[in-house]
Amino acid sequence: MSNNETKRQNVLEVSLQDVSAHRTPDYPVNPLFVERWSSRSFADQPVPQDVLYTVLEAARWAPSSNNLQPWRFYIAQTEEERELFKEFILPGNRIWSDHAPVLILLATDTRRDENGGVNGAHAFDAGAAWGSIALQAHLLGLATRAMGGYDRNKAREILDIPDYIELQAVIALGYRAGLDTLDERFREREIPNERRALSNSILELKRK
Amino acid sequence: MSNNETKRQNVLEVSLQDVSAHRTPDYPVNPLFVERWSSRSFADQPVPQDVLYTVLEAARWAPSSNNLQPWRFYIAQTEEERELFKEFILPGNRIWSDHAPVLILLATDTRRDENGGVNGAHAFDAGAAWGSIALQAHLLGLATRAMGGYDRNKAREILDIPDYIELQAVIALGYRAGLDTLDERFREREIPNERRALSNSILELKRK
Repeated sequence: MSNNETKRQNVLEVSLQDVSAHRTPDYPVNPLFVERWSSRSFADQPVPQDVLYTVLEAARWAPSSNNLQPWRFYIAQTEEERELFKEFILPGNRIWSDHAPVLILLATDTRRDENGGVNGAHAFDAGAAWGSIALQAHLLGLATRAMGGYDRNKAREILDIPDYIELQAVIALGYRAGLDTLDERFREREIPNERRALSNSILELKRK
Repeated sequence: MSNNETKRQNVLEVSLQDVSAHRTPDYPVNPLFVERWSSRSFADQPVPQDVLYTVLEAARWAPSSNNLQPWRFYIAQTEEERELFKEFILPGNRIWSDHAPVLILLATDTRRDENGGVNGAHAFDAGAAWGSIALQAHLLGLATRAMGGYDRNKAREILDIPDYIELQAVIALGYRAGLDTLDERFREREIPNERRALSNSILELKRK
């Protein structure tokens, strides 16, 4: 293993330990879903182009209403591209996301057809694509974190985004780093968060 | 293996073959994402309760904005419960979905807090939960298909759904069956659908 690979492996092992200390599934779900978590620390290590595209390929195969595949990606990787994104990401998120080697603005084409029809499922379907991105990234040893804290109007203006495109989330993607690389203000929160009980999300079926 | 397990295994093997004949990923994505597809045929085989909850457990661990976990599930399994759902699912979808042993109305709590704030990411986050449901079901040898073709007003009325809950999709869940169990009108479409090229979903970054 190269030095980088060894380092990455260590970080992964630590993070797996962390996850089981913080999350206990109630049913025997595939570990993939529980071990993925949205950290904020990113290593100063570039994401190879084929790794980025493999992550996006997972989104490509997500299900969508009428197979419309409404997800669209604006990708920032170079210094210049990331500078553009920094102009519209809110200061609180910039503290950590400035270190992410890849930023993806996940947007949606809201058009159902050429006749002005609207795809009512565009946000929902983009969410499925985002889920696949997060899971495939995790499977490749990368971390993701989606943020809603960015100035949508500014993003539209800076990137000249047409009206029929809606903005869903900015996704930070990269290799997870140790706590010491993260701004002090976020260190205590750099743990996998918990969930409400499944039973609280199941609503009672009762005929009116 | 029990008779049922052998049958299920055969169906799975056939479906895997089918998938590689219809779908070729451009990047080395985990097969999980490519082999999951939204079929319409369902075997007359109940879904055990622990299997259903394991599928929903995957959704439980999906990421969400501020960890609000806006997904909510109305589940129909008994004859009586499924009869309720049949009242609002549109006729074209009933032809195949009537055979699904489980129907899940995936809804969202749109509230951000107790003060009337709205969670702008509720549909997007529910989509991530749906993606996890579809993938975990696939990993357990089950099939899912989400539909938008149902009467939302009727569903609200029949299930007495409060205003702050929005309806996203009805998900059919069960074990996949052979073509012969599917209505003739859907047999030709019972194949994994394709996708546009990934490059078509990546939008150019250009400063205005």
